[in-house]
Amino acid sequence: MEHLRITSRRNPVARAAAALAASSRERRERDAFLCEGARLCRDAALSGVEVPVCFYTDEAAVKYQEYLEPLWRVCGEAFVIDPPVAQLLSSTKTPQGVFCVCRRAGAVAEGVVGFQPRRPCLILENIQDPGNLGAILRTAEALGGFRVFLLGDCCDPLSPKALRASMGAVFRIELALEPSPQQLFATLARMGYACHGAVPDCKARPVDAMDFAQGLHAVAIGNEGGGLTKAAVSLCTDLVTIPMGGRAESLNAAAAATILLWEMARKQER
Amino acid sequence: MEHLRITSRRNPVARAAAALAASSRERRERDAFLCEGARLCRDAALSGVEVPVCFYTDEAAVKYQEYLEPLWRVCGEAFVIDPPVAQLLSSTKTPQGVFCVCRRAGAVAEGVVGFQPRRPCLILENIQDPGNLGAILRTAEALGGFRVFLLGDCCDPLSPKALRASMGAVFRIELALEPSPQQLFATLARMGYACHGAVPDCKARPVDAMDFAQGLHAVAIGNEGGGLTKAAVSLCTDLVTIPMGGRAESLNAAAAATILLWEMARKQER
Repeated sequence: MEHLRITSRRNPVARAAAALAASSRERRERDAFLCEGARLCRDAALSGVEVPVCFYTDEAAVKYQEYLEPLWRVCGEAFVIDPPVAQLLSSTKTPQGVFCVCRRAGAVAEGVVGFQPRRPCLILENIQDPGNLGAILRTAEALGGFRVFLLGDCCDPLSPKALRASMGAVFRIELALEPSPQQLFATLARMGYACHGAVPDCKARPVDAMDFAQGLHAVAIGNEGGGLTKAAVSLCTDLVTIPMGGRAESLNAAAAATILLWEMARKQER
Repeated sequence: MEHLRITSRRNPVARAAAALAASSRERRERDAFLCEGARLCRDAALSGVEVPVCFYTDEAAVKYQEYLEPLWRVCGEAFVIDPPVAQLLSSTKTPQGVFCVCRRAGAVAEGVVGFQPRRPCLILENIQDPGNLGAILRTAEALGGFRVFLLGDCCDPLSPKALRASMGAVFRIELALEPSPQQLFATLARMGYACHGAVPDCKARPVDAMDFAQGLHAVAIGNEGGGLTKAAVSLCTDLVTIPMGGRAESLNAAAAATILLWEMARKQER
């Protein structure tokens, strides 16, 4: 099948794709998001997510052929784009020239629904930095199969910056958005999860003294400025802390999440 | 003492300060760097680093007075600056309007010299991302008194982005640059350090099985793309790995450093 060529930045298909990179509202309303980069697009193609459209430059067709082939197989339509169109779609200075539009519903679930109580969970409340969020999702994947809930008002895990930092983890981990702490903690409790709220309080239990080997566990982390909300803290089973010998007021959210995920992971069977 | 006012972006003092934010070569050659932000500048003032010059806007003088007072006490000269000058000095979209120039030699040491073998060490080789580097320095401080060596060709820990991510940790941890792996590993070995090279190799020893409680330990981490260089690996006492149940090819450098620092820290006496 011949792929049509887009030469103008005013082309409506290209403009509609660019709008997905620019706005989380656009992503929600149109149930779609834009991926950039050969590897991320291939990850999307291999994940089973629906890929209505992909775009690639002539240069990318040569340079990234092995990444593009799985993408061509699954996508609804494919377009060759000229470099100015790649610039329009890109969030980076030097675009690789590979993009695809994916169905949002294939990457994130809305609400704590359809959920089997098996895996350890990570709850991120009101995380605002997309780089931090992406990095945490990447770590949650690397350390093995955490389910992640974005609680309250987190930044969008499908923004270009979060996607880039996550290295495609959104396509492989189970990720759900849940605005209500009551809803989330009640559902987890009903399923038998112990929910541990991470706080910078030396009276809370040190994370390395927790018994994560038995039972079902979820750890909740708040945003960098304010920590967990009072509502979330009051709904947790207990509180956990990362003992710190240093003087920094706190670890950043990504570092705290990494330590908590690691402590849960290393105590599970390998 | 009345503080002089700078109204023009062409003022040579302001231009010289702005050049420090823009170029690591400028920072090296002039033995100075520029800090931005009320809190970071106060951290500089309280650290004992020499502060030849500070700058603040009228608005900042009101809003950040408690941060500025320690700065005024230690700095050589202080200038009030108009908002366009603050824009010139700033690396952020909405500057707080507080800046200071610090002596570089007070924040980083050149080479593995004048060094007492007491503390656990972290070696970062060829780390290129200033946000990652700053985040790692912040974690090295928070988890308690690591000495950090930047080995080979790392990005500059005194760039605006690295300083911002480090949250002032550069002013409180011991930080040294050492281009030569031979020099660094030989010096550490002579002092009795065991140097553990972190590699993504499941045949290396799992980090949580290491006995960090006894003796002196240094952990070396390579850059995200390539890992440790062969030269560094060959000079390490042994190799260590972070067991991963997931599918990500590797953790990012900041996440790997966080887990390694945490494993060293939690096994030290608290």
